[in-house]
Amino acid sequence: MSDIFALKGDIAFSTDIQTIETRENHYLVCKDGKVEGVFDRLPEEFKDIPVTEYKNSIIIPGLSDLHVHAPQYSYRGLNMDLELLEWLNTNTFPEESKFKDLEYAKRSYEIFVEDMRKSATTRAVVFATIHTEATRLLMDLFETSGVKAMVGKVNMDRNSPEYLIETTEDSANDTLNWILETANKYQNVKPIITPRFIPTCTDELMAKLGEIQRKTKVPMQSHLSENLDEIAWVKELCPDAEFYGDAYDKHGLFGGECKTVMAHCVYSTPEEVERMKERGVYVAHCPQSNMNVASGISPVRRLLESGLKVGLGSDVAGGSSLSLFRAMTDAIQCSKLYYRIMDQSAKQLTIEEAFYMGTMGGGEFFGKVGTFLKGYAFDVVVLNEEDLPHPQEFNLKQRLERMVYLSDDRHITAKYVEGNKLF
Amino acid sequence: MSDIFALKGDIAFSTDIQTIETRENHYLVCKDGKVEGVFDRLPEEFKDIPVTEYKNSIIIPGLSDLHVHAPQYSYRGLNMDLELLEWLNTNTFPEESKFKDLEYAKRSYEIFVEDMRKSATTRAVVFATIHTEATRLLMDLFETSGVKAMVGKVNMDRNSPEYLIETTEDSANDTLNWILETANKYQNVKPIITPRFIPTCTDELMAKLGEIQRKTKVPMQSHLSENLDEIAWVKELCPDAEFYGDAYDKHGLFGGECKTVMAHCVYSTPEEVERMKERGVYVAHCPQSNMNVASGISPVRRLLESGLKVGLGSDVAGGSSLSLFRAMTDAIQCSKLYYRIMDQSAKQLTIEEAFYMGTMGGGEFFGKVGTFLKGYAFDVVVLNEEDLPHPQEFNLKQRLERMVYLSDDRHITAKYVEGNKLF
Repeated sequence: MSDIFALKGDIAFSTDIQTIETRENHYLVCKDGKVEGVFDRLPEEFKDIPVTEYKNSIIIPGLSDLHVHAPQYSYRGLNMDLELLEWLNTNTFPEESKFKDLEYAKRSYEIFVEDMRKSATTRAVVFATIHTEATRLLMDLFETSGVKAMVGKVNMDRNSPEYLIETTEDSANDTLNWILETANKYQNVKPIITPRFIPTCTDELMAKLGEIQRKTKVPMQSHLSENLDEIAWVKELCPDAEFYGDAYDKHGLFGGECKTVMAHCVYSTPEEVERMKERGVYVAHCPQSNMNVASGISPVRRLLESGLKVGLGSDVAGGSSLSLFRAMTDAIQCSKLYYRIMDQSAKQLTIEEAFYMGTMGGGEFFGKVGTFLKGYAFDVVVLNEEDLPHPQEFNLKQRLERMVYLSDDRHITAKYVEGNKLF
Repeated sequence: MSDIFALKGDIAFSTDIQTIETRENHYLVCKDGKVEGVFDRLPEEFKDIPVTEYKNSIIIPGLSDLHVHAPQYSYRGLNMDLELLEWLNTNTFPEESKFKDLEYAKRSYEIFVEDMRKSATTRAVVFATIHTEATRLLMDLFETSGVKAMVGKVNMDRNSPEYLIETTEDSANDTLNWILETANKYQNVKPIITPRFIPTCTDELMAKLGEIQRKTKVPMQSHLSENLDEIAWVKELCPDAEFYGDAYDKHGLFGGECKTVMAHCVYSTPEEVERMKERGVYVAHCPQSNMNVASGISPVRRLLESGLKVGLGSDVAGGSSLSLFRAMTDAIQCSKLYYRIMDQSAKQLTIEEAFYMGTMGGGEFFGKVGTFLKGYAFDVVVLNEEDLPHPQEFNLKQRLERMVYLSDDRHITAKYVEGNKLF
């Protein structure tokens, strides 16, 4: 017996980066965890399936967060007065070191996963810490929550404080063992190879991680061209690399057969962008973080025009908010400042483009995810508008834009991941 | 009999732009609507006064919103894809014209005032529309809400659509009559002279408004140096003005004896800044609006270093959010982009500076408002932290920064304006 049901209400979803389709009072049919279609009337074959109606609400695809640091959630919105490298040393590394204590990790990760469960995010690509035990705990919590996640045990074997560093050998071995143990363990969670960034990973470690990827075919995430000091440092550390991304590519860790997502790309050179395009490397655009740690504004318009795959990341705790709606509006606002200050030929991002990046754009990293076209995962968020009254009439497209700007987790009244109802 | 009571809990307030004082488990005493002091133990003379204790909370001064358009609240977060002048014509003017219908105005303003009542804002400087009847209605609603406001009937006698324009004569007469009628009518509300901006007000009207101000001593608000096209237009319209602000000053409407606040000042020249300083003109810094309508980034650091008085504005609906906490973090984030992109010698705003602007800085426009020094108005907001759990310990200063970044109206569990408890 197939598991079939429908949601009824006002439905909005991207079909491409320029288009948000809106369907008022339609049916969204789920069959075995996949979207069967959006219908104005239930087709004869589905006429007896259970229907849940959502009034005064908008039904949209779940959002994908392509870059978030789980252990940093505990200090989001704190000590936001430093640039990246100093911020890592002062805030991040001391906090992440606490995750060797499994009790502390549990307390912290439970808060993080519960807040993500309540959010509009249905998929996330997540950094944990170097600690494999705590990383497994985080994976267990995601599995139970119903949110789908790729979770990475972080690798760091140089330029890291002594309280948060691994030997090259341990880092590689722990990673391989952890991948073998978790690759097929969960329904909702998968491991992802996660060298923190070039400055904290020796060539030797990167080479071993490259081997592990070729053996296990696990995807990979890291940071790229985020901050000017960081880029200068990478140049010093890897004098042979043509550009920052080439330092990953030299070890076979830059897309190609296995999916790869790189956070930021604020300062990617044309050569780096070209290589990313060739290898199908995804960009996690994290505008709020780029403001908070004073990195700058990513030229997203140029990245999109170059044909790169771009999704959004909250980048907690560089970003203070877990909300991808906030990431959408931050992306639009930053693109306006980019246009105004840096390049008046760069068109500002539209709501269509921002919504696409947060749904289909990032969703693609997980496969057929992020829209309501037939065959896509039934990842759904219902946004209730009742406590945001207005005196005038809006069409559905306007209602959607409004909710992107104004909604928070209070308005998320139902959530489904691959057909599974979380609440 | 004096009205005396105390709040007990963890208290934080600015004493100057560089300093946030924190007092854990202290008493904040209110006497006849004014702050009597912050004490670690209740002084003998107050030992029998009623005490309300707020646990797991931070007690801070109420926030002052120096620039907000009440009629625009209904379309906040909508159609955010235009620059200022086009945005006014496409979104603002058609919506504002609806306020000639008092039924519509009531529906719209009730939503706005109720949301402001629930917010952390205790004082606001507000634009209404050209319609005096609807403006009086808005004043009535503020009076009932308990939030203190200066509300302005807007003046527009040129370059405005025919459905939203006044004759010079009517505009001036209506303004004078409305001021005479409302200047002493309310406990919480005062009128404020409100020429929309130079492009929509003839010299003749500005001259009449200047006369009205000299006669009534009512304060004044308007817009200044927000957008490059706007500035070019003003130069065309007022070829004799030395700079944009001089076009107000020529009519005596630029500070001096009567308080004046100018929104934005993104592109104020050194001459304009100097004049503002001479005349004590306040700046309403509205960073989110400056992003949304692609105006740019205001050089707040330079404005502050020049000795200008700077407060924050939500500038709904240029800004999408009514929250002044959001304005604080937007201000910090924008200052980081300014530092990164425009001037690496411009120091980023700190949390102390942003908090000051939202409390004492803007509060001064209303008199002794915005801190807990003795004699200041007892404007208080209580932020409850219970639903924002964290695994580690924070000091009170960290807890405050965290709430500035993370809180929303859910966390505001009590609010007092001049000793009057709103909830």
